Amino acid sequence: MSPFSHVGIFTKPNDIRVDNTLHQLHEFLLQRGFQVFCDQNAGLILGLPAMPADALARNIDLAIVVGGDGTLLGTGRLLAPYEVPIVGINLGRLGFLVDVSPDEMTAQLEHILKGQYKEEPRFVLHAEVVRDDEIIGEGDALNDVVLHVRNEIRMIEFTTWVDGHFVNTQRADGLIITTPTGSTAYALSSGGPIMHPALQALALVPICPHTLSDRPLVISNQSAVEIQLCEQRDVPARLSFDGQNNIGLESGDRIRIHTRPEKVRLLHPQSYDYYHILRAKLHWGVQL
Amino acid sequence: MSPFSHVGIFTKPNDIRVDNTLHQLHEFLLQRGFQVFCDQNAGLILGLPAMPADALARNIDLAIVVGGDGTLLGTGRLLAPYEVPIVGINLGRLGFLVDVSPDEMTAQLEHILKGQYKEEPRFVLHAEVVRDDEIIGEGDALNDVVLHVRNEIRMIEFTTWVDGHFVNTQRADGLIITTPTGSTAYALSSGGPIMHPALQALALVPICPHTLSDRPLVISNQSAVEIQLCEQRDVPARLSFDGQNNIGLESGDRIRIHTRPEKVRLLHPQSYDYYHILRAKLHWGVQL
Amino acid sequence: MSPFSHVGIFTKPNDIRVDNTLHQLHEFLLQRGFQVFCDQNAGLILGLPAMPADALARNIDLAIVVGGDGTLLGTGRLLAPYEVPIVGINLGRLGFLVDVSPDEMTAQLEHILKGQYKEEPRFVLHAEVVRDDEIIGEGDALNDVVLHVRNEIRMIEFTTWVDGHFVNTQRADGLIITTPTGSTAYALSSGGPIMHPALQALALVPICPHTLSDRPLVISNQSAVEIQLCEQRDVPARLSFDGQNNIGLESGDRIRIHTRPEKVRLLHPQSYDYYHILRAKLHWGVQL
Amino acid sequence: MSPFSHVGIFTKPNDIRVDNTLHQLHEFLLQRGFQVFCDQNAGLILGLPAMPADALARNIDLAIVVGGDGTLLGTGRLLAPYEVPIVGINLGRLGFLVDVSPDEMTAQLEHILKGQYKEEPRFVLHAEVVRDDEIIGEGDALNDVVLHVRNEIRMIEFTTWVDGHFVNTQRADGLIITTPTGSTAYALSSGGPIMHPALQALALVPICPHTLSDRPLVISNQSAVEIQLCEQRDVPARLSFDGQNNIGLESGDRIRIHTRPEKVRLLHPQSYDYYHILRAKLHWGVQL
Repeated sequence: MSPFSHVGIFTKPNDIRVDNTLHQLHEFLLQRGFQVFCDQNAGLILGLPAMPADALARNIDLAIVVGGDGTLLGTGRLLAPYEVPIVGINLGRLGFLVDVSPDEMTAQLEHILKGQYKEEPRFVLHAEVVRDDEIIGEGDALNDVVLHVRNEIRMIEFTTWVDGHFVNTQRADGLIITTPTGSTAYALSSGGPIMHPALQALALVPICPHTLSDRPLVISNQSAVEIQLCEQRDVPARLSFDGQNNIGLESGDRIRIHTRPEKVRLLHPQSYDYYHILRAKLHWGVQL
Repeated sequence: MSPFSHVGIFTKPNDIRVDNTLHQLHEFLLQRGFQVFCDQNAGLILGLPAMPADALARNIDLAIVVGGDGTLLGTGRLLAPYEVPIVGINLGRLGFLVDVSPDEMTAQLEHILKGQYKEEPRFVLHAEVVRDDEIIGEGDALNDVVLHVRNEIRMIEFTTWVDGHFVNTQRADGLIITTPTGSTAYALSSGGPIMHPALQALALVPICPHTLSDRPLVISNQSAVEIQLCEQRDVPARLSFDGQNNIGLESGDRIRIHTRPEKVRLLHPQSYDYYHILRAKLHWGVQL
Repeated sequence: MSPFSHVGIFTKPNDIRVDNTLHQLHEFLLQRGFQVFCDQNAGLILGLPAMPADALARNIDLAIVVGGDGTLLGTGRLLAPYEVPIVGINLGRLGFLVDVSPDEMTAQLEHILKGQYKEEPRFVLHAEVVRDDEIIGEGDALNDVVLHVRNEIRMIEFTTWVDGHFVNTQRADGLIITTPTGSTAYALSSGGPIMHPALQALALVPICPHTLSDRPLVISNQSAVEIQLCEQRDVPARLSFDGQNNIGLESGDRIRIHTRPEKVRLLHPQSYDYYHILRAKLHWGVQL
Repeated sequence: MSPFSHVGIFTKPNDIRVDNTLHQLHEFLLQRGFQVFCDQNAGLILGLPAMPADALARNIDLAIVVGGDGTLLGTGRLLAPYEVPIVGINLGRLGFLVDVSPDEMTAQLEHILKGQYKEEPRFVLHAEVVRDDEIIGEGDALNDVVLHVRNEIRMIEFTTWVDGHFVNTQRADGLIITTPTGSTAYALSSGGPIMHPALQALALVPICPHTLSDRPLVISNQSAVEIQLCEQRDVPARLSFDGQNNIGLESGDRIRIHTRPEKVRLLHPQSYDYYHILRAKLHWGVQL
């Protein structure tokens, strides 16, 4: 008996590499008697009717994502409020989040669908932008919320508070507020630390800061972070969620960030080992 | 009514800068009817009988440390098992741990001794060195446990496990296992992140690693860390506790590190603000 | 007898802080019998006729710039082909290039105008953008030529050749090609080394590179650098000169960079000491 | 006709991996009529009489080194004063300096011995330690001269001058003075830039500096560098040459470093490409 019955298939648009895997996955699920639902992209490829994202989220008890880490980020943000568990199938290249390879897919799913898996919760950030006491935009992020300069190579200036305490005013290309999940993504390129996925922490990682002692700061994920763009400097800035959605910012805007109560529920094969993926992705076996 | 009655005074050896402060402190405490005990160094300066460290730890309900952060580290390690609260008086230069200035000392102590303070727990690491299945040395650290090459500028090679999971084998000058308290000390010079003192986390920060993707790793402080020096390479190495105590290591030695259950209890003036100290110490107001 | 006779005054627009200094400077020069010419901004403030930039460059034998490092960068690029020497007066805050303070201005100029100065040549980069075998834009830079992503926080992908040798293909937020002059500006925030101004070298400094071993590379300034934006990824990018002028880029564009034969000639007071400025700007006296 | 006639063979001690290559090399040279001389290590393996290092240096017009980069460093320092050209054969793993693989050895040597090679000069540093106006030790380095703390994890404090100009006083684990050749060795692990081998420059790279703005500094290799260990702090320190030879230091000691006039002459196959080696060693093809 499977703990799951209604399975949603999610994939990325316009990538012919997923076709075979998708057909194989679909057939596999049908044969085992699961009810299968498709998102827009999967529906197009499989020639099946697709269900709008919100309806999908409410109607499935398992999501299978075929694609890269980026594809899973989008699905994760969508499903977090519903706490639908997610399995990630990659396109032949291991991802931090999509850790099942196409050629092991059926063998691994056989186990997972029977309830033999490791469940790993990943927390999600919520950020809202306040202008003149009104929320003018908001969004979720599984990797990171990034405040960054737009277009120009002029630095932006902003002030940060944590739990109401003034931290600093800095000038930089931007600031990454990253979860442990995002710590191996953009934040790592900006000098941030790797954080184990189970750590209940956020890192605030400045991007190319003017002051050389402006170093990454790790705080509890239960802390409330607030950032304000300085009024005086009129440099165009933007807030990005997982590098996928954006909100345009104006000087004086305030950004409020907190951790959502619901989690993204990643399901892994029982052989899953975070450090194995870390070694593979960072080429730690490789010596200079 | 004070919550305290038996006060221990701790200071550093051979530093004439503490004399005035110490006499002033002693008189202040006597006038208010506290029973005062001295460690070796304070006894020498005040011309009073000193009590051995262990006896002191058992007989006092408040410790006042006059000196730098280094002095407080030693006292902290001593008092952690007894959970005696500690106030740190600096020598005129703000420390991360000794945040009361001599010229504000009496005013601040007036409040603290009445029970008007902010208490901040800081956790302590315990490390033991295992050779041929026997513990050949152990120690505590409030800042950091540092595995480092000795004498030579040859790299050491070692393997790290977290909660029994193999992390990696790396070659480096060493590895810093730092608490949040130590994150603004040696680990910061080695590229580690700043961690807020309330964060229940450790960072593993490699020192000059051979592989450029060997980056700082932040994990829960409830994780057990184990490190083994590689058998093959006979480079002399050492384990340091807060840079103050040392154990000599041989190839093949295993180091086991975990968080102690007891905490160092720092008492701060109620105006204490961690980020204020951070800004002052890292010169964050200062712009290039 | 002064080696100079025709002095041009250059300043920044819309900054009332320069007014007093500018008037004082103008009077000082007139009293000593110099012929004084104004750029657009100085003319506006002094109520004098201004001369177009090109005519100015051809008619003066000394330029005095009142403003910040940014103001001097613009004047430097303008005057480089004519090799007119430049003195930089700051606005009360020491710059790397504008090292004469307003309150020492007349005393220092007294010496400089008599020929008592240290001359320091700074080389200038020239970059041109080639699309379909045609040069579609070009420019000069005294600090740096910066290839950077525009608008998005997606990485750009580009290939670099030095003297015709393939160096690498990398993914990053961008690449800074910096002179020693620019090495203490944006490149320093991105992890580049400080280069002494007399060094005949360039540094190629990646901005937030995806691959952690993509480190700054220092080469001779006589090397020809060529960079091509990858064809496949259509991420909007831009080329910036000293962060002041820009050229929009398309995928497949090639950027060719070389050192110009002419130099910017900075004149300093005889007490000038590069390391003194470095210490002051980087707060090297300041200890954690 | 070969431009060479007297060939010296150099290798590392106690490494059985070189045996086959050494015998093959020896036979190859004899067959082509070269006079072959052996250093101590090669003599032992080949069962031939060895010549003392100095005599070897004077009697050969070509050196062939079989081993790793470390082996070539020692031979390079030995031969630099005599400007004897050097070919490096590796042990199957590409080095920065030993770029001929054993399986290509005979084919490549065929060309090189006919005079078909790329010659690449690498400059050498000379450092002397002055105590009480007397030189108490000196040495050469092809990679780097490293001032470093010994034994302890306490920082050392030292002052640096370049061409007589005071640069700064810093506290750190040490300071690496690296050539371009050494820039991909220890200095890279300490955050230094990569410098192209043809660049006539030195980098001063602090090791774990206390002040976060103490960044690598690149200067002309014609500059004279002087470093003095501070008098007050009695931390044991040491000066290392290529990590192979050492001089013990006392507080107050002065270290004077300059570039030697003679060069190490590396001979490479004509297909040699520095960037190819850089890509291979830094795994630049490898993407996260």
